[in-house]
Amino acid sequence: KKSYKVCTLPGDGIGPEVIAEGKKVLAAVGARAGVEFICEDALIGGAAIDACADPLPEATLAAAQAADAVLLASVGGPKWDSTDPDAPRPEQGILRIRKALGLYTNLRPVKIYDALAGASTLKPEVIKGVDMMLVRELTGGIYFGSHERFYDEQGAGANGEAGQRAVDVMEYREYEVERIARQAFEAARKRRGKVTSVDKRNVLETSRMWREIVHRVHDEEYADVELEDLLVDNTAMQLINRPADFDVVVTENMFGDILSDEAAQITGSLGMLASASLGDGVSLFEPSAGSAPDIAGQGIANPLAQIFSVAMMLTYAFDMTEEAAWIETAVEHVLNEGWRTRDIADSDTPAEKILGTADMGDKVVAAL
Amino acid sequence: KKSYKVCTLPGDGIGPEVIAEGKKVLAAVGARAGVEFICEDALIGGAAIDACADPLPEATLAAAQAADAVLLASVGGPKWDSTDPDAPRPEQGILRIRKALGLYTNLRPVKIYDALAGASTLKPEVIKGVDMMLVRELTGGIYFGSHERFYDEQGAGANGEAGQRAVDVMEYREYEVERIARQAFEAARKRRGKVTSVDKRNVLETSRMWREIVHRVHDEEYADVELEDLLVDNTAMQLINRPADFDVVVTENMFGDILSDEAAQITGSLGMLASASLGDGVSLFEPSAGSAPDIAGQGIANPLAQIFSVAMMLTYAFDMTEEAAWIETAVEHVLNEGWRTRDIADSDTPAEKILGTADMGDKVVAAL
Ligand SMILES: CC(C)[C@H](C(=O)O)[C@@H](O)C(=O)O
Ligand SMILES: CC(C)[C@H](C(=O)O)[C@@H](O)C(=O)O
Repeated sequence: KKSYKVCTLPGDGIGPEVIAEGKKVLAAVGARAGVEFICEDALIGGAAIDACADPLPEATLAAAQAADAVLLASVGGPKWDSTDPDAPRPEQGILRIRKALGLYTNLRPVKIYDALAGASTLKPEVIKGVDMMLVRELTGGIYFGSHERFYDEQGAGANGEAGQRAVDVMEYREYEVERIARQAFEAARKRRGKVTSVDKRNVLETSRMWREIVHRVHDEEYADVELEDLLVDNTAMQLINRPADFDVVVTENMFGDILSDEAAQITGSLGMLASASLGDGVSLFEPSAGSAPDIAGQGIANPLAQIFSVAMMLTYAFDMTEEAAWIETAVEHVLNEGWRTRDIADSDTPAEKILGTADMGDKVVAAL
Repeated sequence: KKSYKVCTLPGDGIGPEVIAEGKKVLAAVGARAGVEFICEDALIGGAAIDACADPLPEATLAAAQAADAVLLASVGGPKWDSTDPDAPRPEQGILRIRKALGLYTNLRPVKIYDALAGASTLKPEVIKGVDMMLVRELTGGIYFGSHERFYDEQGAGANGEAGQRAVDVMEYREYEVERIARQAFEAARKRRGKVTSVDKRNVLETSRMWREIVHRVHDEEYADVELEDLLVDNTAMQLINRPADFDVVVTENMFGDILSDEAAQITGSLGMLASASLGDGVSLFEPSAGSAPDIAGQGIANPLAQIFSVAMMLTYAFDMTEEAAWIETAVEHVLNEGWRTRDIADSDTPAEKILGTADMGDKVVAAL
């Protein structure tokens, strides 16, 4: 019997609740497919700060590296918001694990679930057919350049006197752009064959280099794929104006952070969306939404994004696309039957159709 | 008779067409108010590159500095897109004039015009009542840090060989954050008394400093104003989710570029929105939308954003708020009568109600 090791990272807020449902679904899929998934929890984020004053303890990184895949829930919360600049922050755990595992590609599929189309703040005719794949570079750019604070004896204060100065450095190397461009073109070949490359080349040198390299990789290796360039500010507009026109959107780390959240919000299905972070070794899968500390511990969080992250893990880490489709079909079935968690319910949802976290997980398992 | 000098910069694309209507309206207001506005054209952007190989000729800067206000249309177009990295680019004219005039505050009001609410891709109940002011820092951050390209003998290419590396530097000084924060709080006091400060403090040092300084300025000088912090990725979502909740939104240059375009698009009234760029000297006013090279020269562009930029000029440069209100009332009157330019017409607009650029300008003048 085939067996895979999954490093599970519950993290903070609603994390432990939703990852429990992800594991349930994974176990059910395993039982049906005749594959064993061995999940082992490790600490990350605020939970890890509380336990060992480190948002990414060595043991966690070692467990992740030894696993066949990593399933993350979410990290962070007001408990660890500190005004002390040297206090460890939960998000550092995320950034460090991305870098340590070399997860340079973040794939965020954004699509509309028909049953939830009404939840979007956009008009139904505008979001109809939205189905895009955001490809975000995840280990470079301003996220991983130096971040420094200086105290200048002159020039930084109000009248040229002493004051503070902060500097962040955005840096890209040729190979970093090349490899993410290839990921985008490969994704497009499996989809509708179109890539939109987003940059700010009228201001940034990294963007000018980005555009040159994306075009070179395109012309040399992927001339069959359609390629267009769009400035980041224009993209922020066009995602709202004509979201259904996008197929694959590729961009650097910071722009990807902003645009992928914007794109997710457009669908109104944020509680449904997950992402895959891939590199040359083990991959990581997580829901797109955050740790929602305001509803943590109440058993009302939506576990579907976490469940979809399990489907992405099956596809990308274990090449089990058929089994991934089981999950998607099961979730669609549950939604079509009218079951909802609170966040995706609307005024037409009868109270008895609103489920808690665990009940929603059970419904999906039952539908499998 | 009072007299003001206005440096007018038609720029590229639809710029010359729409600025002509702005001048018409300005002259009409002047006639009624008994104030003389002396407009003098100067070159900027692509037009200036064509004429003197420089997107901001010295003569233009001198004219701007000698004027009481600058009225800009828009710059750029495919004609000046070049793969030669050393070729002058139209947008450099914009960036350089901002820096040279010290225009550190960009004010972008974003609101819904009832007559055009249907043009938004968002649901009417979501955009109802949207009325916010984006305050963007305009002369700092990654826009004005160094932008460099290197060729590394090793480490930047695919297998650690030679390759390119690009670096952009994001930098803020204490006084830059202080003064833009004050602008935001001042704006909030004249509005609904709430400021949302946007940063990415979980990643950037400039953001951590930004947040500290904004809070210090708030606590020391503007404790009466409500202040909230929002991460930039979350802001990109909330602008779509609950746009009517925002009053004043203040952020650094790059985030402001992205978020102000997103906010403008949400209204569906992009062709109506203008911005003011203010500093310690002469101020600059311009429409929010671009040079639209695809429709340039056809006499069909919407001049209303340019006309609103004239209203902003009256308010901010000449303290003529009453006269600015004349313009707003006149435009509303024209819209309520059903007149439209092509971009803001919808399927219900009868063909005879669709006006060209100059006719729309004439209607506004007639309504004054
Ligand atoms: C937690 C934070 C550092 C992270 C990021 O900015 O990458 C998050 O917003 C994300 O998109 O995964
Ligand atoms: C033309 C470009 C450099 C400019 C910017 O990015 O600031 C524009 O997008 C704007 O927002 O005024």
